Order: sequence, then structure tokens, then C-alpha cells
Amino acid sequence: MKKLYSIIVLSVASIAFSQKPLDRVEPAFWWKGMKNPELQILVYGKDVANNEIELSDGIKAKNIEKVENPNYVFLTLNTNEINIPKFKINIKKGKKNIASYTYELKERQPNSANRESFTSKDVMYLIMPDRFANGDEKNDSMPDLTEKTNRTLPNGRHGGDLHGIINNLDYIQNLGATSVWLTPVNEDNEKVYSYHGYAQTDLYKIDGRYGTNEEYKELSQKLNKRNMKLVMDYVTNHWGISHWMIKDLPTKDWIHWFNDGENGFKRSNYKTTTQFDTNASEIDKKVALDGWFDTTMPDINQKNPLVLKYLTQNAIWWIEYAELGGFRVDTYPYNDKEGMAKWAKAITDEYPKFNIVGETWLSTAGQISAWQKDSKTGEAANYNSYLPSVMDFMLYGDLPKALKEKESWDTGMNRIYNSFSSDFLYPNINNVMVFFENHDTERWNEIFNADPKAYKLGLTLISTVRGIPQIYYGSEVGMRGDKNKGGDADIRRDFPGGWKSDPQNALNPSTQTAEQKKFYQFTQKLLNWRKTKEVIHTGKTKNFVPQNNVFVYFRYNEKESVMVALNNNEKEEILDLKHFAESLNGFTKGKDIISDKEFSLQNNLTIPAKTSMIIELK
Amino acid sequence: MKKLYSIIVLSVASIAFSQKPLDRVEPAFWWKGMKNPELQILVYGKDVANNEIELSDGIKAKNIEKVENPNYVFLTLNTNEINIPKFKINIKKGKKNIASYTYELKERQPNSANRESFTSKDVMYLIMPDRFANGDEKNDSMPDLTEKTNRTLPNGRHGGDLHGIINNLDYIQNLGATSVWLTPVNEDNEKVYSYHGYAQTDLYKIDGRYGTNEEYKELSQKLNKRNMKLVMDYVTNHWGISHWMIKDLPTKDWIHWFNDGENGFKRSNYKTTTQFDTNASEIDKKVALDGWFDTTMPDINQKNPLVLKYLTQNAIWWIEYAELGGFRVDTYPYNDKEGMAKWAKAITDEYPKFNIVGETWLSTAGQISAWQKDSKTGEAANYNSYLPSVMDFMLYGDLPKALKEKESWDTGMNRIYNSFSSDFLYPNINNVMVFFENHDTERWNEIFNADPKAYKLGLTLISTVRGIPQIYYGSEVGMRGDKNKGGDADIRRDFPGGWKSDPQNALNPSTQTAEQKKFYQFTQKLLNWRKTKEVIHTGKTKNFVPQNNVFVYFRYNEKESVMVALNNNEKEEILDLKHFAESLNGFTKGKDIISDKEFSLQNNLTIPAKTSMIIELK
Repeated sequence: MKKLYSIIVLSVASIAFSQKPLDRVEPAFWWKGMKNPELQILVYGKDVANNEIELSDGIKAKNIEKVENPNYVFLTLNTNEINIPKFKINIKKGKKNIASYTYELKERQPNSANRESFTSKDVMYLIMPDRFANGDEKNDSMPDLTEKTNRTLPNGRHGGDLHGIINNLDYIQNLGATSVWLTPVNEDNEKVYSYHGYAQTDLYKIDGRYGTNEEYKELSQKLNKRNMKLVMDYVTNHWGISHWMIKDLPTKDWIHWFNDGENGFKRSNYKTTTQFDTNASEIDKKVALDGWFDTTMPDINQKNPLVLKYLTQNAIWWIEYAELGGFRVDTYPYNDKEGMAKWAKAITDEYPKFNIVGETWLSTAGQISAWQKDSKTGEAANYNSYLPSVMDFMLYGDLPKALKEKESWDTGMNRIYNSFSSDFLYPNINNVMVFFENHDTERWNEIFNADPKAYKLGLTLISTVRGIPQIYYGSEVGMRGDKNKGGDADIRRDFPGGWKSDPQNALNPSTQTAEQKKFYQFTQKLLNWRKTKEVIHTGKTKNFVPQNNVFVYFRYNEKESVMVALNNNEKEEILDLKHFAESLNGFTKGKDIISDKEFSLQNNLTIPAKTSMIIELK
Repeated sequence: MKKLYSIIVLSVASIAFSQKPLDRVEPAFWWKGMKNPELQILVYGKDVANNEIELSDGIKAKNIEKVENPNYVFLTLNTNEINIPKFKINIKKGKKNIASYTYELKERQPNSANRESFTSKDVMYLIMPDRFANGDEKNDSMPDLTEKTNRTLPNGRHGGDLHGIINNLDYIQNLGATSVWLTPVNEDNEKVYSYHGYAQTDLYKIDGRYGTNEEYKELSQKLNKRNMKLVMDYVTNHWGISHWMIKDLPTKDWIHWFNDGENGFKRSNYKTTTQFDTNASEIDKKVALDGWFDTTMPDINQKNPLVLKYLTQNAIWWIEYAELGGFRVDTYPYNDKEGMAKWAKAITDEYPKFNIVGETWLSTAGQISAWQKDSKTGEAANYNSYLPSVMDFMLYGDLPKALKEKESWDTGMNRIYNSFSSDFLYPNINNVMVFFENHDTERWNEIFNADPKAYKLGLTLISTVRGIPQIYYGSEVGMRGDKNKGGDADIRRDFPGGWKSDPQNALNPSTQTAEQKKFYQFTQKLLNWRKTKEVIHTGKTKNFVPQNNVFVYFRYNEKESVMVALNNNEKEEILDLKHFAESLNGFTKGKDIISDKEFSLQNNLTIPAKTSMIIELK
């Protein structure tokens, strides 16, 4: 442990360490009237622990915690005991005040605690902000941030920003999305590959190349006005190696590191099944959970209560400050699972409706469901995650296989049907995220060679089954990208039209190409239809075993019923509707929600080759 | 429903129906001192329900149940109230006794209730009796049984029998097996394909071509003397269409049938995931569970309490009569799951140590574990099966894939490792059956082209991981069989040497071919070593994430440790043993249990290509 600590300390001390008696206070401000009145304030300054800290107005800290590094002090206050909006934190050497900070306890927004969050009513639009639209060329490169914009580098920064998103809210809303998940936009001041944002260097500050904290809040408020939600991509597992606290670690165990690794680095084995595997070796568990995701991302130790409190307060700070509508949490199963249960519980205790979806990249429903709050599968491992939502990576894995293979007992449409047959393992199946791609995976349109039919089959499925559909920017205009050939950069290409210099603009439906329109118009029609369809949001599901590689299911509630049929064959199929009598009971007609055509449902239904139909029953 | 009933009644009435006033009494006898004193006696005779039934010695039935078919009466007695060993069941017309049956309540074997059963200490040897050895040529064809022996027909009867097994108990015991599972040996009097035995026509009678009830008991007793166990293949889901009760149904709902099927027949869709899928359509659930396994196997209705009682008593009768050591239950998830929970509970209430393994042919641990008693996954579906043991079909599916493919994050040895990572979902992971083939699957030696190396890898794995290894007759001498080409018959070929006329005898190690010896000697060495290895039977497991396609795990308890390493590469691999320090701790030497060679474990371990090593740590 000592080795890394000293290496980091020695290598960066001269440039990074604070020379001021008071350099940072985090959180910079807080709010009155939180359910949990306890506030922990990090005070950072040169040798601050060796000075005296005094609060004004007779305020007493419940606890003043000093750690190995004298540049840090952690004050714990009970905000219920503070009846004034502002007070001072004074740093004193003897009787002399050498620095001072005015701490504010703000008023909360009305109904903040009871804020709404994303649910299965929503469609989540996933944006990689550097690659979506450049709304402010002035911030493309910033003096204080190392990597400068250079669109010719696939892995470089391309200049997309928050204003690019704000400028295109009409586009996103018209498309039918109702929530926006941005990959991380906090400062990531690594020298290269900083565009992905997962190596954060400041957890309280939006990266200047994306905009400002205020602009982030503006985006959120503008979304809220449209009855849409901003979802932050929260990263608890790792920070960037250039994070100011990593450069001057408060405690040695703030991060994980390895004696036998190079500068403490050891790569994770990416085997997070070790979390619930009672037979996993200690070394594998340690490498899985404590190993680093990459050389530039030291692994954060959520077992350290100060770390956990820091992550918890930071998360709450962003919710309250930026009026957020949810979190997506990166690499969820790589974290200390007990720490994360406390983290999720603290947030949802504060905001009972707040939704948090973890990136539960595991293969089976048995494993994935174990990460959802109150699951019996988690209970089998004596665990309750308190995490409201998980990602259905099983379906993600099954979908492209199913559409590419011939039918058998467990392949073709039967593979998808089988995937859903484990839904009983989830305690809250409506609160799972469904998707066929994201910023880490091969693009769907690459797998299917930009075939609109395959896109429509996939989108129909994720938009009409239980859960929260998540779509990935650009696929709605047919964007491709081959991770196998071009690496991550290729699945994160710039959205055509997001830059002034772009020769063609797909963000304006009137200037989309004929090819783009094939994807866009279907997406727009389907997602806008979905917006008001309670039967899709919260209705029950009735699945029928696929026959002849056609999968049919119904969504229904007391008021309405929708029939979805997916023909995975290269030829037309005719369904004998008698087979679906229990769900068609009483209905005689149907309306295809894409073509708006009505037809009889009394005998047969013909579905063209490789086509999906979404039919409102009448 | 009426339709099938009348068809069956009309078509077979003249030949099948009893003309005697008392034709059958089932169970034919019972025992005193069972925990459940209630006994239900089926009395079958022409119009018996319209006659009077009188018990001798003042014994009163608690209940006399008559059903739609007047040829049946079901008497319920409390055996605790009967203090004599024998009494009479008299059938009277008016005052005239027209038939009589002497019913006996026998003494139980000492310790019968507390009998031992198969556990993870055992190795199960699966035999298809018609194809193993012909010990008694006199019973090859029987006058009262339709199909005659004809070894030239792949799907015909070949003459194997109980005496063939009895004659070869030395072979089986020397091989290292400790339990024997026979596919069903009750009477199956279908015209064709009767050899598989799953279309039973009499649940209380061993098929004459296999032997007699007494010989079956003799086999069991001879096994018990060797400290081995006989495991009956019990079939609750279906009977043969020529079963005497199917020909003269007691009640219309004794079996399931379909108005829209041909003569009531509809084939199951084989989708037993519908059992726990809360979204399954009613029609699919019905076709899965009530549909027939095949045209000659009417699906039994375990929801009917008389049926369930009949199946329960029949099962207990065989345990008590034949001194059985366990059940394997066919097509478990195709049954009514509530009925089966009662069935399993009734049997294990009577015999608390009795083991029952269900054929849970499902793809994932989440689905399979839901069938094991007290599982949280079952609880997620509000279900407790009371079934002690299930089959690990997930591992079965993963094993050959893993050995055939290249390594990646989730392929090669990682696929096997991943498979075990869901063990936490099982409430009793030691009580799962592990296997790489059975009488319904492709033969392992066919998949791997009779490569002894692949066989050794597979056998090492199933014999050293948690659970009860099950092997399939003949593979231990390299038998092949291609289900894809030759159908079921090809994976059920005759054991060479089981018939006097066979040109070569593999049942005698001294006459085995060199090729057969390659398989046999390894099997014999490994399984005999396993017999006394508590550390394998009940020890803990420590799994190490595969590195370079080599999977290493340890089995350990307080007394000893065993290291197992499987090299799935086509080249030798050298393991750096430091990686396994937590399990090698304190041990410096190892002994390969196959070669008996000892070597140092202080630095590296070299494993030849496609080889497994089982190493006792010293």
C-alpha cells in the first residue's frame, strides 16, 4: 500500500498540492430540511488539519475527523441545529484567522424530496455528449483542460456539449424520448480519451468543454419544463487518475491498489459473478472488485466510510442542485456491494421516487435480478442492494442472436421467449431497462448491416415489452459503428448535423436522407405512440410460445389491449388468430399503430417477412 | 372431454374391461406402522361400485369413494385401527359373497423409515436395462407381452434384463459406481418402442421381459449388501396408452386431453418455463403441462386427488417393497407443480433421508434451482417443490460447448466457471446431479469423436465438483452413439458383451480392447478414489477464474484438500502456483491421483494439453 501512495505523492506533489490554507470546501453548499440532517463537509487546504477550524455563530461540529493526510479535515454538522442561512468556516492559526469560507444552507425546491423520476412510462435517450452536437464552439478547448478538441482523432474530443443538447431538445422530444441519459459530463481532465468522461477529475464540476454547472442545470430545467428528465451517469467505482484527491489522497485506502501491480495498478478480471459466488477465491474477488477498470481509473474504496459519505453527498448534491430525474450507475457490480447498498438506500431514503439503474452487465436473469432491491435471488446470497432498477443484459445478449439464427426449441424467437420466462426472478420487472445497444456495445445497425427491418423488429420489442426502453443516439437515423474494427470510437461517431460544418443534418427531419428517414419516421411514430400508452407502461403481459418463428405477446390492462407480433422469418406468415382467443376475447378489430390501418381480427393475420406489427385491439 | 372418454371406452371395451366382480386390488398389500396411517385401496371389478363392499373383522372404512366408472371403488382405511395382519375385502351382491380378497398389512423392515438414500457420496450409474445385458434368455419374449425381442431392430426390444444387471454387479461396483439408476422397468406393453419403458401399462408390476417383482427386489437387496443403492425411474407425468386404467378410466379427468386434438391427443409444446412465467398464456401453459409427451403417453392429471394418492402410494409401495435407495423422476416440470410438491412431501415425510432427483431440463440456474426444495427462486414464484434434488442441465449444456470453443470472457473454461457462479441460487448445491450425457442426449464420446482426453476432462469435472455425478452405461468403455443421425436407438446401443453371442466382452476388464481400456481404467481409478473422499462428497469449493483457458478449483475441508486443474488448450500450460496461495497455504507437495506420482507444489505446475489433473495436497 505504501508503495503507490508514495509514488503518487512523489510524482505529483509539486504541481498538485494545495499551497493555500483553504483551497476547497465540498460540498460547496447544502440545503436545509433534508431528511438526513447530517452533513459532512470536506475542508481541504495546506496543513489544514494542523490549524484550528472554527465555525461562526456558535455553531458546533458534531465531529471533526482528521485523517492521515493533514491537508484534509472532515466536519460533521447537524443542519437541523443551524437556523441561519449562512455561516462561516474559519481556519485559524492560533488566534489569527488565515482563511474563511462562507457556507450556505439553501432553501430546497418545493416538492424536491418527492420528485418524480424516470419509470417505465419513459423512453431513455442515451447521448455521448462529446459526439452529439457542438452548440458552443467557444468551449471546444479550454485553457485549464489538457485535451483540446480535434475532430480528426477518433478517440479525441470532438466538441459536442451541453448547448448542443439544449439546442436539439425539440429533436429529442419530437423523436419521442422522455428522458435523457448523458454519459458523464463532470470534469475529466485526462490527457487522452477524456471524451468518454468516466475518468472524472472533479465530481462537483461540469467539464468546461461541455459547459458549466449552470448550463447543466439549465438543461435539466428545460427538460423538466417539457416533462422530461435528465439522468446523470454516476460513477462510484473509479475516478480519473488526475482527480485532485487521487493526486493527494486523504487516506491510503481511499483507492484500491496492488503491491504486485505496476504503480499499484492491476486490471480487474471483469468477473463480477464473484460478488455472489460463495466459492469464489479471495484473489479473484479482490481482482474483480478492487482491480482497476483501466490504468487511468484508480478503483475507489467504498468500504471507507469517508469515501462512501463523499459519494453519497455528491450524488444528493447533484440531484438537488441540478433537479435531476435519475441516475444510471456505471459498472455497478464492480463496487463494494455493501457500500453500494448503503449508498442507494441513503439516496432513495432522501428521494423515495428517485430511480437508479445499475449497469448490471451479467448474463442471466438469476445473476442480474440479484442486484435489484428486495429480490429473492439477492436474498439467496443474503443481500439486499436497495438498487431500484437493473439493466436486462440477458435480453440484450439474446436479441441479436435470436434475429440471426434459425428457429429451434431454444433458438430464434424461442430464445427471446425463453429470456422473458425468467421474469419471475425480478421483484419489480417494470423497473428494468431494456435495450439492444449502448455506448459500450456493437451498434445494432452494424450487426444488421443497416437493415431497417431488423431495426424495426428490435425497436418494436424494446418499446413494447415491460420495462424502460433505452435507445442510443443516432440509431434512429440508421447510424452504424463497428466496435470490432474501429474500437469504441466507431460506435461513438458524431451525430450527422451536430456540427455546423457537417455536410448533412440528420437532426432536422426535413434534411434527413431517404435512408435516415426509414429509421427516424418509424422511431418517431412508435415512441410518440408509446408516450401515452399506460397499457405499455404498466400493463400486464401475456406471452405466447413462438410458433413458426413468430413471437406474439399482448400488453393489457382493464382499459385496453395491444397485440404485438414479430415475424422473424424471411417470408410472410399467416397467424390463425384462434390460438390467441384468451387475449383477443371480445375484440374483433385491430389498428396497426404504424400504418394506422384498421382490419378484422376474426380469422387470420398476415405478417410480412421480418416485420413487426403493433396492433391496438378494438 | 366426453369425446375422448367415449372413444377410449368404445374402442377397447370388449377386450379390456373386467368381467370379474373383483379383478384387481391396489396396492396389493401394505405395511403396518407407516407414519401416515391412511391407506387408500383401489378395488377394481365389473360394476363393483354397484355391489356392496364389506371388510372382515369389524373393520370399517373411513371412506368409500365411488367415481363415474362403476368398475372402481376407492376405500380409505386407517391402518392404525387395524390390529390384525390380514383381513378380507368381500364383494357382496345382496347377502351373497361374490368375491373376496385377503389384504395383508406386513411388518416393515427395521429402520425402513430412516433408510439411507443416494447423496453426493455416490456415483450414479445409469442403465437402460433392455440394452445392458441379457441375463435370462427365457424372458426375452413373453406370451402376455406384445412386443417380442428382436435385436436386429434398433428400436425393438433387445432382451436386456434384471438378471443381466445382477450378473454384472461386480463390474458396476469395481467401476466405482455406488448407485444404479435404471430407466423404467415396470410393464410397458406397447406394441413398439416398448424398450424405453416410459409408457408404463402397470405401475405395480415389473415388465416380464426384465424379470419379476421378486427379481427387482433381489437386485435391490444385492446392491444394498454391497452398500450400493437402487434408484427407480419414477414416471408421474404420463402412462402408456395401453395401461389398464387408461383403457377403462376411473374418472374422465384421470388424464388430460384436448377437444381439438386427435382422439384427445395434443403434443406438449415442451415449454416448461411456463410453470413459473407469470406472463405465460393459458393455452401455452395448458399445452406444456397437459399436452402429451407422445401419442402413446396420455398425460396424467395430478390435480385429481385420487390420481395423486395413487401415484404417492405406488411410489411408497416400491420404496418399501423393493428397499429402494432413491427416485429419479421423469419430466418433472411437465407435471402439475402443486400436486408434485404434495407427492414429494408425502414421500419425504415418510422417509426423511430419501432422495428424489427431478429431471429439470431447463437452461439456467435461475430456472433449475426454482425446482429445488426451499429455494429462494421458487419462493420468488410463491412455490416450494419439496423436491430434494434437481439436475444441473445448465452445466450439461455448457460443458461440451466450453471444451470445443476458443477462450474469451464468457467462452472456453470461462463458460464453465460462469456456470458455477450461479450456485448461490441453489439452497442445497450438494444435492444436484451433475452429468454430461444421459439416455436422452447425444453421447459425449460421439461429440468428441471418442477422444479419451475429452472424456477424461469431462469425467474429472463431474466427479470432483459439488453434487452427485451421474454416468451413462457404456461411455466408460468409449461407447458412441449419434442421436442426430441414428435417433434415440443409437445412443442406447447394446453394451458389448452383454449378450452371449457378442463377439467381444467389455463387461470383463480382461477382455476389453485397448481402446476400451483407455476409458475404463481412468474411470475405474477416478471413481474408486472418489468413493472414500469426504472432501469431494461434502467439502467446500474454491473456484479460481480461468487463466489461459485453464480452470483450477480446490475441494477442501478441515482434514484435506484436493486441487483440480483442467487444461482446455491444445498445448501444455505452466501454472504459476503463487496465484493459488490461499488454497495451497501450508501444502508443499501433491499427488496426482491417477498416476500416483508425487511432486513439489512450490513453484510451477505443468499440465499437458487437454488434460486434467486431480491432486491430493500434502
